[in-house]
Amino acid sequence: MNLTGEMLIGQTAVKGSRDPIQAINPATNERLEPGYPGGTQAEVERACQLAWDAFDAYRETSLEARAKFLETVADEIEALGDALVERAVAESGLPQARIQGERGRTCGQLRLFARVVRDGEWLDVRIDPALPDRQPMPRVDLRQRHVALGPVVVFGASNFPLAFSVAGGDTASALAAGCPVIVKAHAAHPGTSELVGRAIQAAVKKSGLPEGVFSLLFGSGREVGTALVSDPRIKAAGFTGSRSGGLALWKAAQSRPEPIPFYAEMSSINPVYPLPAALKARGEAMGKAFVGSLNMGAGQFCTNPGLVIARKGPELDAFVAAAGEAVKESGAQTMLTPGIFEAYESGVAGLAGSGKAREIARGAKGEGPNQCQTGLFVTSAADFLGDEALQAEVFGSTSLVVECADDDELKQVTEHLEGQLTVTLQMDDADTETARALLPALERKAGRILVNGWPTGVEVCDAMVHGGPFPATSDSRTTSVGTAAIFRFLRPVCYQDLPEALLPEALKQDNPLKLKRLVDGKREG
Amino acid sequence: MNLTGEMLIGQTAVKGSRDPIQAINPATNERLEPGYPGGTQAEVERACQLAWDAFDAYRETSLEARAKFLETVADEIEALGDALVERAVAESGLPQARIQGERGRTCGQLRLFARVVRDGEWLDVRIDPALPDRQPMPRVDLRQRHVALGPVVVFGASNFPLAFSVAGGDTASALAAGCPVIVKAHAAHPGTSELVGRAIQAAVKKSGLPEGVFSLLFGSGREVGTALVSDPRIKAAGFTGSRSGGLALWKAAQSRPEPIPFYAEMSSINPVYPLPAALKARGEAMGKAFVGSLNMGAGQFCTNPGLVIARKGPELDAFVAAAGEAVKESGAQTMLTPGIFEAYESGVAGLAGSGKAREIARGAKGEGPNQCQTGLFVTSAADFLGDEALQAEVFGSTSLVVECADDDELKQVTEHLEGQLTVTLQMDDADTETARALLPALERKAGRILVNGWPTGVEVCDAMVHGGPFPATSDSRTTSVGTAAIFRFLRPVCYQDLPEALLPEALKQDNPLKLKRLVDGKREG
Repeated sequence: MNLTGEMLIGQTAVKGSRDPIQAINPATNERLEPGYPGGTQAEVERACQLAWDAFDAYRETSLEARAKFLETVADEIEALGDALVERAVAESGLPQARIQGERGRTCGQLRLFARVVRDGEWLDVRIDPALPDRQPMPRVDLRQRHVALGPVVVFGASNFPLAFSVAGGDTASALAAGCPVIVKAHAAHPGTSELVGRAIQAAVKKSGLPEGVFSLLFGSGREVGTALVSDPRIKAAGFTGSRSGGLALWKAAQSRPEPIPFYAEMSSINPVYPLPAALKARGEAMGKAFVGSLNMGAGQFCTNPGLVIARKGPELDAFVAAAGEAVKESGAQTMLTPGIFEAYESGVAGLAGSGKAREIARGAKGEGPNQCQTGLFVTSAADFLGDEALQAEVFGSTSLVVECADDDELKQVTEHLEGQLTVTLQMDDADTETARALLPALERKAGRILVNGWPTGVEVCDAMVHGGPFPATSDSRTTSVGTAAIFRFLRPVCYQDLPEALLPEALKQDNPLKLKRLVDGKREG
Repeated sequence: MNLTGEMLIGQTAVKGSRDPIQAINPATNERLEPGYPGGTQAEVERACQLAWDAFDAYRETSLEARAKFLETVADEIEALGDALVERAVAESGLPQARIQGERGRTCGQLRLFARVVRDGEWLDVRIDPALPDRQPMPRVDLRQRHVALGPVVVFGASNFPLAFSVAGGDTASALAAGCPVIVKAHAAHPGTSELVGRAIQAAVKKSGLPEGVFSLLFGSGREVGTALVSDPRIKAAGFTGSRSGGLALWKAAQSRPEPIPFYAEMSSINPVYPLPAALKARGEAMGKAFVGSLNMGAGQFCTNPGLVIARKGPELDAFVAAAGEAVKESGAQTMLTPGIFEAYESGVAGLAGSGKAREIARGAKGEGPNQCQTGLFVTSAADFLGDEALQAEVFGSTSLVVECADDDELKQVTEHLEGQLTVTLQMDDADTETARALLPALERKAGRILVNGWPTGVEVCDAMVHGGPFPATSDSRTTSVGTAAIFRFLRPVCYQDLPEALLPEALKQDNPLKLKRLVDGKREG
């Protein structure tokens, strides 16, 4: 497929009029053709109107039709073949195997949401039948289901050009909920975005859905992004990216005459706690494995372990020494964009120049452009507690070890943490009580708690929580990975005494959709 | 029980230091003893610290212990006996039978939440067991449950001094979720608040719970209310009241370094649609019944029908004429407070003086203080569409009929509406297709859709939605009445590869709590 540099608005392709966005191959700093001229308020207007026009019909598609549509999107993405992988590799600097894996995850999560749609549990049907003879007052017939919120804007993320971009988790869950989606493409991978966008566009057509179910816009965050979030026809938005970018759009969403849910996944340093017995038994091996996680995807995972918190002592020293050796052996890796590379360099320089963090080791210096050097630093609990800057995320493969004098200090550091996507315990049996004492604080701080694993790598399944208290996300009540993500785009509606002819299928008396409904306080089926 | 005029902070009673709040019997304008001196930042600090200290223990109470606690609260409220009813009648001007009914609802909803807690569905347990042999990558063991958000602030509402105040729906659902609660009492009924607060305080003690599970503060919204919502230990808040008050506190909640969910139930005019066939068949009876709903509780229900939207014509004229007759026969009723009465008078005067609304009828003028006169006005669709002020809520027993020339205009008026708690269709069989055409818009506009009923009267059950798009509430994804209200105060946490010894009861392998868990995509039990 030839890339045209156009935006996709419903079933049409439209060339923008603003300065073109052009992808850069970060491995070579070469500019990739074509340019993608940005959109304006006119294209925002057109995409929003189409999405609005499509909404009532799309949200009432049958469960089977909507599931089939999601599967068709996956099929169409797979049908793009090697062209998609090549373009994504060129635009992201990520290895081919990683992009192939990410494509599998992307299509897998679309198909998983197809299963979720068919199951229908997301409708959360609750029925309280009429009790005409109840004293002192009869009860009316009350039936509840969930309906889609409305058109949703999705901001593509740079670090997962497939799995968290145009057809990524936010798009899949919003489409599953019955919401039309307008994607604001990330500037780092416009060609990948066009390819995937055209796959979705084709799936919309093949599925006979209203064209406004999907649009893809290019352009600046300030112009197109803010205009989308501010449009009254948009009823929610999903975002994965930086804290500053997320907060700016979040504020725009809250400043509307009608505020809307804005799901931003922003900033997390994912603390790792090597506990005493585990440190003693396997500090060295743990140090090496830790650096393996730190280097995953050039440290550009949202769940990258940017912080280690442990009791000071020879066992921790052994861990740090082993980790330092592994850091020294870490090859340079190409980062996603020149901008991300620069931010990483300046973040590491800030840490090194803070006077509060001691450098343990740096990895190999890269020979090509935009290559990150892994880094490991150590600080004291006192310095960490005294300087907010040490808690800021350095997006990339650098981590900071916080040495705590005793359990009290360790608890203090823990309570001082901002919200996180993950926290990880490395523990042996003898650490059980130490872990138990830490757990309540960890539950308050993070969306996912791991034992003896590493936070990088997020399974797409029912039980996953990729979320957490602010600033990990803007809404700790939700997850952006896994099937529960669908609930972000739904709201309950109650129907009182509706005649059978007007009831939605999900609520009809004889349960034609065979749902497990909550009837009079008891679960059916 | 003698009222002392004190705040309740944990198990202590504390006299405030600010100007005393004193209840006024709206039926007589008499001041009721004692005065309730307001709290300051010092009491906010103390209550928040106690709530925070109680949080980790309270959120992990067993399902049975927490359910029993809610039942004990209900028992203690009932044990207050007639003293509570008398005081609430004196402070609210509401009839004794209404207050008795409201006490029944209040205790009923506490016991309903006890059932919800025991059932454990709110934990939403999801388990994806490890798949060590999966290719290309093994799956780790992932288990999700919901945990309480943290200490919650509840703002008591004036219009339900029991059911939506100190031990009302917000408090019951937050306590059920495992959140300590700090209530900021409404100034209109401080004595009722103290009585109910002391009942909860006694239940906390009898249940052996940490004292910070409940506190009750008096004071100004600006000082005490804002301080509570801004405190970093507070993780959510519930509010029922005016749009201006709700929005001010909502903004404070969003302006924190860590924004928190703020559930405000604010403003709704609850449109009623008498459809053509129904109007023709029973316009007169419908007009009378409508005024019955309009006059409920002196029009001070959140779901009061403040708007009628219908096709112009002789059938609507008959409805309006009958409603007008019923309005003329409506006796004056005492409103909740002098302030609410004044706001009502000024709202009605604004409508009458707008030049765009024709007065059809007014009810009897009261002889006592603070007595509202029922009102009915008519306007044209064009005027309604052209003047935002006509859509503003007049809190009290006045309603506005919007005459539409045709179905197009009716649709335009509908799309123009702000978000609502309820919309009501009055219809006969012959109206089915008209209703079907309206339904998508109504689903987008309201949390509850009624057929051939009246919106006043909200059943507390599983299927209820007392919520709706902004400005009906600040968060359309939730309800503040009914069992689903518990989800407002929960967030998911995922546990990866935790040893059995550290797993919460709800997630242990042999399902000791006998929950209906989602295991590997299938529902257990």
